[in-house]
Amino acid sequence: MKMAFICFNQMTMLDLTGFTEAITWLGILKAKENVSWDFCAASEEITDDRGMIIKIKHILPDLSKYDLIFIPGGMSTRQLRYDVDFLLWLKTAKVVEYKVSVCTGALLLGAAGFLNGKKATTNPSAYELLAPYCLEVIKTRIVRDGHIFTGGGVSSSLDLGLYLVEYFTNSGFVEKVQKLMDYPYYQSGKLHILEKDNNI
Amino acid sequence: MKMAFICFNQMTMLDLTGFTEAITWLGILKAKENVSWDFCAASEEITDDRGMIIKIKHILPDLSKYDLIFIPGGMSTRQLRYDVDFLLWLKTAKVVEYKVSVCTGALLLGAAGFLNGKKATTNPSAYELLAPYCLEVIKTRIVRDGHIFTGGGVSSSLDLGLYLVEYFTNSGFVEKVQKLMDYPYYQSGKLHILEKDNNI
Repeated sequence: MKMAFICFNQMTMLDLTGFTEAITWLGILKAKENVSWDFCAASEEITDDRGMIIKIKHILPDLSKYDLIFIPGGMSTRQLRYDVDFLLWLKTAKVVEYKVSVCTGALLLGAAGFLNGKKATTNPSAYELLAPYCLEVIKTRIVRDGHIFTGGGVSSSLDLGLYLVEYFTNSGFVEKVQKLMDYPYYQSGKLHILEKDNNI
Repeated sequence: MKMAFICFNQMTMLDLTGFTEAITWLGILKAKENVSWDFCAASEEITDDRGMIIKIKHILPDLSKYDLIFIPGGMSTRQLRYDVDFLLWLKTAKVVEYKVSVCTGALLLGAAGFLNGKKATTNPSAYELLAPYCLEVIKTRIVRDGHIFTGGGVSSSLDLGLYLVEYFTNSGFVEKVQKLMDYPYYQSGKLHILEKDNNI
């Protein structure tokens, strides 16, 4: 499984690292074969919303070669969703099997057309902004609609990362990852209960 | 309050960003005056344990000019604690009022001598490694001993960041930050109860 972690200026780093910390254990512990990941962006350097500067090796790669794309959020998504060049790039992910966002990253998935007819969530402050891009906004922490996974605000990145780990493995493995992350809050064994509660 | 966020190769990024996401709201929302922060390291570029490359502007600054230093963990701390040049640099923080670590960052605080006579915690996998550097290892998620704050494993960074936010402000403000982080798990209003439970 080849994963692209999409970065952009003024992104919220915890949206990204909560997710990447969890999901990359799939590769490190060899729970799945051939797991790899690239940090991707539209420029060779991006600065997050706290001033951390990230150097990017994978600049505007064709995203169709990945199996999973992940998009974090940040205040800048409110403008970035109208950036034609960025959206053209994002749309190269149309055929990518798994599409995942945290926080207002959902606005970017939406602007690229990936949420058409889908249920999704986002940061509670952006529910109304997300509505035009999807079938229905579900006001909860994690939503899965087919192979589209969306998370709520910033720290939902940890829960969503663990949810994906469990989705790809089982509750025993995700508990191992939780322990490595020293994260007591995620509740394993509840994927289907959660989806039922969300009416999905 | 001038804060130094210490970075090093093979660090665990979530150790850092869980903390920085929370504590920087003190500045963004102007809950305290003159809050600023620098990402600092011993070289102009560092690569974390997932391959993310961070560009550093503040290389080996004299840490004595800061009011707070924060040190994340990572597998590399087990070697880094013997790196004389790194420790010499870290020791310039001797006079810094607030010293904070998450995960095995505590081994670095310890190797610099900052935990002498202090109670502290670290990643559960490193309790024994920490013991020689401090008065007592407290096997819990957050420990405060005077102005030394240590957190448990990786994701304790979010709780410790919020704990510090509450320590510097009040439970009403930390609840505002929790909402911005969409983090339901931290329990405000319990600083003293937690410390009592830890026998500190």
